[in-house]
Amino acid sequence: MIALFTDFGLAGPYTGQVMATLHHVAPRVPVVSLFADAPSARPKPSAYLLAAYAVWFPPGTVLLCVVDPGVGGARRAVVAEADGRFYVGPDNGLFDIVQRRAGETRLWEISWRPEQLSASFHGRDLFAPVAARLAAGEPAAALAKPAANRSASRAWPDDLAEIVYIDHYGNAMTGLRGDLLAQDARLVANGRKIAPAATFSAMPPGEALWYTNSNGLAEIALNSARADTTLELAIGGKVMVEA
Amino acid sequence: MIALFTDFGLAGPYTGQVMATLHHVAPRVPVVSLFADAPSARPKPSAYLLAAYAVWFPPGTVLLCVVDPGVGGARRAVVAEADGRFYVGPDNGLFDIVQRRAGETRLWEISWRPEQLSASFHGRDLFAPVAARLAAGEPAAALAKPAANRSASRAWPDDLAEIVYIDHYGNAMTGLRGDLLAQDARLVANGRKIAPAATFSAMPPGEALWYTNSNGLAEIALNSARADTTLELAIGGKVMVEA
Amino acid sequence: MIALFTDFGLAGPYTGQVMATLHHVAPRVPVVSLFADAPSARPKPSAYLLAAYAVWFPPGTVLLCVVDPGVGGARRAVVAEADGRFYVGPDNGLFDIVQRRAGETRLWEISWRPEQLSASFHGRDLFAPVAARLAAGEPAAALAKPAANRSASRAWPDDLAEIVYIDHYGNAMTGLRGDLLAQDARLVANGRKIAPAATFSAMPPGEALWYTNSNGLAEIALNSARADTTLELAIGGKVMVEA
Repeated sequence: MIALFTDFGLAGPYTGQVMATLHHVAPRVPVVSLFADAPSARPKPSAYLLAAYAVWFPPGTVLLCVVDPGVGGARRAVVAEADGRFYVGPDNGLFDIVQRRAGETRLWEISWRPEQLSASFHGRDLFAPVAARLAAGEPAAALAKPAANRSASRAWPDDLAEIVYIDHYGNAMTGLRGDLLAQDARLVANGRKIAPAATFSAMPPGEALWYTNSNGLAEIALNSARADTTLELAIGGKVMVEA
Repeated sequence: MIALFTDFGLAGPYTGQVMATLHHVAPRVPVVSLFADAPSARPKPSAYLLAAYAVWFPPGTVLLCVVDPGVGGARRAVVAEADGRFYVGPDNGLFDIVQRRAGETRLWEISWRPEQLSASFHGRDLFAPVAARLAAGEPAAALAKPAANRSASRAWPDDLAEIVYIDHYGNAMTGLRGDLLAQDARLVANGRKIAPAATFSAMPPGEALWYTNSNGLAEIALNSARADTTLELAIGGKVMVEA
Repeated sequence: MIALFTDFGLAGPYTGQVMATLHHVAPRVPVVSLFADAPSARPKPSAYLLAAYAVWFPPGTVLLCVVDPGVGGARRAVVAEADGRFYVGPDNGLFDIVQRRAGETRLWEISWRPEQLSASFHGRDLFAPVAARLAAGEPAAALAKPAANRSASRAWPDDLAEIVYIDHYGNAMTGLRGDLLAQDARLVANGRKIAPAATFSAMPPGEALWYTNSNGLAEIALNSARADTTLELAIGGKVMVEA
């Protein structure tokens, strides 16, 4: 299976052209869009979001990941292998957290080039064909050469005390793993203290709560209301932990 | 075929994870997303929307339906069979109208449980595997046990005189079946009287009209403009019928 | 392959019902949504957007195109063949630019009718079955009869000096082919002069630039910001070229 993690949006032409390329190169491989609204042009929060969601997929899955503000510039194009999953995308930190948490990891720089490579859409022209060929069984070594991991230069923390995603319901995911926090820890966001709760329905309507979401991230929500607008939360906003 | 009726949104991780689960459990069954923006956390208007759209699908279709504000609480997880279609989701009224309008209907409570069941995402962990197994041919009796229909306790009306959905064009669908209204009936929404018309192009630009939409619901629209913003319509807003 | 070019949106019921119809009539043909947010009810800018993006698909592709404000009125339903691709949709100018730029082109009026044809949703009831049958190998002559091209009556220009699409990042595509402009031409939009640049990262953050996008259209963007809100650009807005 190929899973897409991008900031392309679904309605516009980008996801559709990537899907068409994947179907063309690997006709029998199922493709799902995991996130089409990853933090736009922001690899750092995207890296924590990806790390939480990618491990839900079975080993062997190819994750095509494009949050790529440097497209057309000097950043490398890479394949990262981590615990049996393959990640294809730009080398801008997007795979740093996935690799750090993996038992086993390798990095390749993509050396294959398509006949036509646009300056602004490597997702379609470069990353999608590579992802499709990996998913169809081609070895990474046929498309890429071993490369050095440069994540040390970025030195991002193990967990990110920031909002990394606002979902369709207005819930705000943080870059913090819920299981690493004290069970009675409070989160502080925008000066507001937020207590833990097991589920929405455990709290009175309109009350803020945090809980460990179904992919392990500490998530801030309101029962029966939007947390983002009520608490004025946005991607990149800082969160503090009060033990 | 499996059709999705949810309030998950398409861009975020929820529809993608459900799609991945369905592909994994029932690899050859086609999946389409019918609604990913059903009335958020509101089973009542969702029930009338679902009843209008589900019957368009051929018998044998499995509808995976998740509008589930009580997830993690005490509500039952059910399979409803109605006129040869299967509906999988929470027992919160979502299937009441489908069942009431069906010639033949049965209800089961889902007894199967996955190895891992998150507190907040039964759509992915419980309902999707059950829907996939039904679509792959497994009998409901293997996954669920016969259950009593509790819709009488809710006593929702046969048709709902409210806005139940605002579409991409700003058209407002009501929970009223157009064919049950007098052909010259007027609808009143937000104090505005709205006359019937056969099609958009039958009315002058900017004029409000109602018509029976392609799935049988009475729908309020403006020719060449958005009805929702112009008439200030929102899901849950009351509609009156003047015969 | 079937590619969808519509103004239906993805979340609502329209794209899902079209997808279900396509799967039903042509079960083994892959379907991708290219645009679900083409300029709403505006065939003219849509025609330039379609012409730029359709030619990216291989010959043999069927493009199901529905931007159809006249649905239910007198406009013809057509199949256009242009350079080996098939376009199915309303005869309202949507295919004028595709046909004008093609080496070889033919037009048919769809004579086939479904058992049930709703007044407001020809995309699902008429165009989708025809597109699926063409994609499954049925000849156009079995579904339609040769028809006269009426594009002369519209006399739209070869390139459209207007914004035709705003993407997910806030970039504004024009209806101008970038390669036909002088390499140092400036675009003027909303009184603002915009210089050309090869890629985003060639410009300082916050600076406006235009470039030829990955499908050949001149596109206005800001490095690290939204062009649409910053420059107040919208579909239909005029653009001037200063050579």
